[in-house]
Amino acid sequence: MSDVKEVLGNYSSDIIKSIEEDLSVITPNNLQEASIYLTKAGGKMLRPALCLITAEAVGGKKEDALKTGSAIELIHTFSLIHDDIMDDDDMRRGMPSVHKVWGEDVAILAGDTLFSKAFEIIIKSEGTSHSQNNQALATVADACVKICEGQASDMGFEDRFDVTEDEYMEMIFKKTGALIAAATKAGAIMGGASQEVIDAMYEYGRLIGLAFQIQDDYLDLASDEETLGKPIGSDIEKGKMTIIAINGLASAGDESEKLLEILKNDNNSKEDIDLAIEILTKCGAIEYARNLALDSVNQAKEVLEILPDSSSKQVLVDIADFVLERHS
Amino acid sequence: MSDVKEVLGNYSSDIIKSIEEDLSVITPNNLQEASIYLTKAGGKMLRPALCLITAEAVGGKKEDALKTGSAIELIHTFSLIHDDIMDDDDMRRGMPSVHKVWGEDVAILAGDTLFSKAFEIIIKSEGTSHSQNNQALATVADACVKICEGQASDMGFEDRFDVTEDEYMEMIFKKTGALIAAATKAGAIMGGASQEVIDAMYEYGRLIGLAFQIQDDYLDLASDEETLGKPIGSDIEKGKMTIIAINGLASAGDESEKLLEILKNDNNSKEDIDLAIEILTKCGAIEYARNLALDSVNQAKEVLEILPDSSSKQVLVDIADFVLERHS
Repeated sequence: MSDVKEVLGNYSSDIIKSIEEDLSVITPNNLQEASIYLTKAGGKMLRPALCLITAEAVGGKKEDALKTGSAIELIHTFSLIHDDIMDDDDMRRGMPSVHKVWGEDVAILAGDTLFSKAFEIIIKSEGTSHSQNNQALATVADACVKICEGQASDMGFEDRFDVTEDEYMEMIFKKTGALIAAATKAGAIMGGASQEVIDAMYEYGRLIGLAFQIQDDYLDLASDEETLGKPIGSDIEKGKMTIIAINGLASAGDESEKLLEILKNDNNSKEDIDLAIEILTKCGAIEYARNLALDSVNQAKEVLEILPDSSSKQVLVDIADFVLERHS
Repeated sequence: MSDVKEVLGNYSSDIIKSIEEDLSVITPNNLQEASIYLTKAGGKMLRPALCLITAEAVGGKKEDALKTGSAIELIHTFSLIHDDIMDDDDMRRGMPSVHKVWGEDVAILAGDTLFSKAFEIIIKSEGTSHSQNNQALATVADACVKICEGQASDMGFEDRFDVTEDEYMEMIFKKTGALIAAATKAGAIMGGASQEVIDAMYEYGRLIGLAFQIQDDYLDLASDEETLGKPIGSDIEKGKMTIIAINGLASAGDESEKLLEILKNDNNSKEDIDLAIEILTKCGAIEYARNLALDSVNQAKEVLEILPDSSSKQVLVDIADFVLERHS
């Protein structure tokens, strides 16, 4: 099995170079700096790498997907910048967030600029047909609408404790899964795949995107503070309706009431959080989430059977496994 | 000469219908309502109408430009929503602005959603070729980058009183002219025009866009409060570097110092504003701006000579004249 982080690293230098080139023409200077800042801060480059690897796995060239992959990273960055404004998050990738450095106005504009640039970059892709560029762009635009809808749903969930599993799954698909699915689908389009393979690669991306988000919920309770870089149970402290909280409220029987009380309380003690974790463990909600993520990953790997064997296909298998192996 | 407002009105019902249809699928409800709000509040629909009229004027069908025109209106609306957040403007189109009704977070998202939808809509245009859709989209994406750059430049001018005419002209082209130019260029593309005509229609849009903005600067000093709906000289009061202020500072000789003092002062009396207007009138700055707008309009009409005579071409001529005839 390949080391996934190392493989992602192999793709990221081309992607970063491409992004820096495309953003270097932005004026005035402060807008350019704010736009390029998070790319320079370093990210896993998971989405663009998935786009390039998928292009190879369907028999195409990674170069043909480079611009689309870079554009998808810009869309991801745009959504981080605007989300940080909305959530008033001070830090991102270990650095002060964009609106903390340049102020909210420039941060809004930097996000908008990245968004515009992303579409400009895809449509100007060379080496692929107008039809391919068109399809890739439609795929990314669809994901962008879903990201906004997912974020709006997520904000709408803040004061609600009756969110259903279906609502939650739709929200995380839109907020997180849609762009990952767009990355693998657009990679397949730019790699020249058939419609059947394109659809399969969208499904693969959707499934690992779901697993990724569910694993985040799981790690919040099952990891340790040092590895995670934040206190265990912080989602419970925030009263966030994760898949674990939703399942717990539905399956903890008599203890649901206590669990709900802790979720609603803004000033829980460490004992309260530990009690909530105990309830969620006992009723099987944590295991339920873990199994859901595992099922998604297994389904994602099954979907990959449509592809001929290759080292790129193996990387896609490894990335699916990696989603559940990461501890932070 | 046709009544321009009446002509624009003839196009607007199709455009509004198209926009409402495309936005009706957005969820959750509050995001949909915030996204559609300003379209329902009513606008001149100048940009989308220009797109459709240009498609006709180059010999094409307005239906082929309908989706692109609607998308351009969405981009315009997106920029209004985000600008109102940045400028903290409470009112828009006679109603409370989007962030005043739904809060800043939803307003940021509504803008982002309109932006995403716009690209989705253009790329799905039917009846035109992939190549046309591609070119139209690249045109709009380019304008979006320019809008962000123009807004960032404009914000950067706020504390500067040494803005040059060239800097100012570039800023207003990007902030206002670029999307109008994109509307006429994309209309020509969707109407099936030759590259020469497409380029000419971009130039036409650029020129009337400049005239439009300069006329705004002119009306701030040359209109009357009742017609304009705001006090005369409000740009001077805000210390805004308009083309008139820039020209005045360069050409008012000994009185430049007094003019600069008034521009820098946040608490001017009505007498101060009147004195500034007197200085700007005497040194010819107001006339200079008026002539600049007039020249742009005349050049725009000359550019139209590339088109065969038609009623749509006549409307484009009338719109160019209308830019200078409006009083508010």
